[in-house]
Amino acid sequence: MQLSKRVQAMQQSPVRKLVPFAEQAKKKGKKVYHLNIGQPDIKTPKEFMEAVRNYDSEVIAYSFSNGEPSLIKAISEYYKRFGITYNEDEILITNGGSEALIFAVVATCDAGEEILVPEPFYTNYNGFTTGVNVSINPITTTAENGFHLPSKEEILARVTPKTRAIMISNPGNPTGVVYSKEELEILAEVAKEKNLWIISDEVYREFTYDGLTCTSFGNIKGVEDRVIIVDSVSKRYSACGARIGSLCSKNKDFIKEVIKLCQSRLCVPTLEQLGAAALYKVEQKYLDDVNKEYMKRRDITFDVLSKINGVVCKKPTGAFYIIAKLPIDDAEKFALWMLQEFDDNGDTVMFSPVADFYATKGLGKDEVRIAYILEEKDLIRAMELLKKGLEAYIKVNK
Amino acid sequence: MQLSKRVQAMQQSPVRKLVPFAEQAKKKGKKVYHLNIGQPDIKTPKEFMEAVRNYDSEVIAYSFSNGEPSLIKAISEYYKRFGITYNEDEILITNGGSEALIFAVVATCDAGEEILVPEPFYTNYNGFTTGVNVSINPITTTAENGFHLPSKEEILARVTPKTRAIMISNPGNPTGVVYSKEELEILAEVAKEKNLWIISDEVYREFTYDGLTCTSFGNIKGVEDRVIIVDSVSKRYSACGARIGSLCSKNKDFIKEVIKLCQSRLCVPTLEQLGAAALYKVEQKYLDDVNKEYMKRRDITFDVLSKINGVVCKKPTGAFYIIAKLPIDDAEKFALWMLQEFDDNGDTVMFSPVADFYATKGLGKDEVRIAYILEEKDLIRAMELLKKGLEAYIKVNK
Repeated sequence: MQLSKRVQAMQQSPVRKLVPFAEQAKKKGKKVYHLNIGQPDIKTPKEFMEAVRNYDSEVIAYSFSNGEPSLIKAISEYYKRFGITYNEDEILITNGGSEALIFAVVATCDAGEEILVPEPFYTNYNGFTTGVNVSINPITTTAENGFHLPSKEEILARVTPKTRAIMISNPGNPTGVVYSKEELEILAEVAKEKNLWIISDEVYREFTYDGLTCTSFGNIKGVEDRVIIVDSVSKRYSACGARIGSLCSKNKDFIKEVIKLCQSRLCVPTLEQLGAAALYKVEQKYLDDVNKEYMKRRDITFDVLSKINGVVCKKPTGAFYIIAKLPIDDAEKFALWMLQEFDDNGDTVMFSPVADFYATKGLGKDEVRIAYILEEKDLIRAMELLKKGLEAYIKVNK
Repeated sequence: MQLSKRVQAMQQSPVRKLVPFAEQAKKKGKKVYHLNIGQPDIKTPKEFMEAVRNYDSEVIAYSFSNGEPSLIKAISEYYKRFGITYNEDEILITNGGSEALIFAVVATCDAGEEILVPEPFYTNYNGFTTGVNVSINPITTTAENGFHLPSKEEILARVTPKTRAIMISNPGNPTGVVYSKEELEILAEVAKEKNLWIISDEVYREFTYDGLTCTSFGNIKGVEDRVIIVDSVSKRYSACGARIGSLCSKNKDFIKEVIKLCQSRLCVPTLEQLGAAALYKVEQKYLDDVNKEYMKRRDITFDVLSKINGVVCKKPTGAFYIIAKLPIDDAEKFALWMLQEFDDNGDTVMFSPVADFYATKGLGKDEVRIAYILEEKDLIRAMELLKKGLEAYIKVNK
């Protein structure tokens, strides 16, 4: 039986493809520290389960296609903290940030068209585009430059007649970059000059360090009708398994068309929306405490990396990822070796090779992504394992 | 700002587009009986909320991309009741039957290809295909023939070089038809002769009446490698708001490719999957009782329709829908008139015009779909309103 070319062209998840080897390592009795996936260990605020447990209707009925009114209202209120106004008819609830991104791509691009994305990028952007015949046109950024954007001219030079949108993750997954207001304004100028949509994935908005704040595209003037903001409770409130995201836009035509996509899948789970509405009302202190915790972890991780000879890595300022360029040829081989050959007192560590986070073939082969999502003691041990493993690997491969 | 042609080509939900007029009617103080949407009033088994409430992890973490093992196991066990064997690696959990259908379409069809679907069909099939540049090639069925399939020759004549799959809903939404084993075998022959996939949407499997049972495509020999079965807890356990569906196939290549789609959206909500796993263990008596209740409602609805002069309607044997051909020109105008102009002691009734359930333009203009999802007393009153309204409408439009 023949399968579609588009599904065959889809990349296997680079974050998940080493999982079977980790399972094998565990079966052999090794302890594997996971720095490979963005599943935080932070507790979900208890308000989520309280709201879910309090559901007392006898029927688990459909919610509205655009979302539960209480959740939409809570998100509208949440944006006001950042000086951003999205009215309730400008917000749609989605199955995680994932569905929000898919809807944004389908509504703005036809088959054969393309989207500009700074690389390395969140690898699932590949799935969201390839599956619907849209391609990613990458804007290359580098470890040496802390993954900040190139000049306006370089970005303009990438635009083709088929380009329909710019899509960014800010703060960045997998780079940890937080784009400056000036960088966003340059993207806004490009979007205006070339008539592009701006799809701004801001799910890591709260995760910025060193006193920095993340400028939202909701704060950039003059592009209100072309900005689409994607959000999610997954990382913000450590509720990845709730799968509640949202899509905001001041462009009424966009909202009208996306509502058709929402209607065709009927609705997002009712209970999870009630839980998410409660999360958006959790006091600011929760977010502040989580932020402090991640900044501490960022410092632990960066401190180890910066002391290893030959590692290139600028201190990232957002999200909970660090990309490090290692003094080796092939990070995927190294990651596999760490699972299959290495251990230190029975322990090893898993991280993600970064090559598949680039659209340009050949880039990032010597880079790894570390998700600093373990608590202090485990993170220190995991980073020690990385350092020891790297030294041993270099020795073996001399 | 330009929106994609594909999203603009998507139909507005015909089930939901009259909703604003119903809201207006309610604001004017009318009571509206809803026979327009498939949201049952049946209680969800209490096991669902018990399982959800018992979740005691402190983090709402990602589930597996292919689904929670306990739910997959429960579904595998459930199929055994029907003599169908799907192993745990042949089952994937999805965001409702909706996502299962989208994944099946994306994985089997490329942009520009098409799927054979008996019309009238569940209108969201339009959204699932148009959004990903696949078109529906309809096999027309008629009220006079109880919406059964035409001959093998007629079906074969519809196949073009671009046809990749046959998609059916069995028991049928919106028709209430239950296809015979012989009809499925004819489809199987067509699929084998023309090398097509078979996407079998069996979410109404339990809803069959008059002692009839629904033959699953899982019971048809010789097409195991081309059959994809879509299921859902929405109607079966009156848990529409849980959004838990599934996709089964014995074709390992298909499963492998769809797992990429699953991975790109990470997972289905964790809590809802635990609730759904509990539902699949609910005793058979629940399903039997629900079945009896719907058969009673089917009889009430059909009894009224069959006594109205000029109505064409064969007694349907499955799901909870009836399509009736009315002695009027335009069912959408009639539905609107019922909301805007008609009332009987302040009451009116809402149903779905069926024209948009056909892909062939011009068909079904005089047909309505009635979802018999109200309890006895309300249903009797709703059907009385339909009868009175129809008589008044015919009088006014003479």
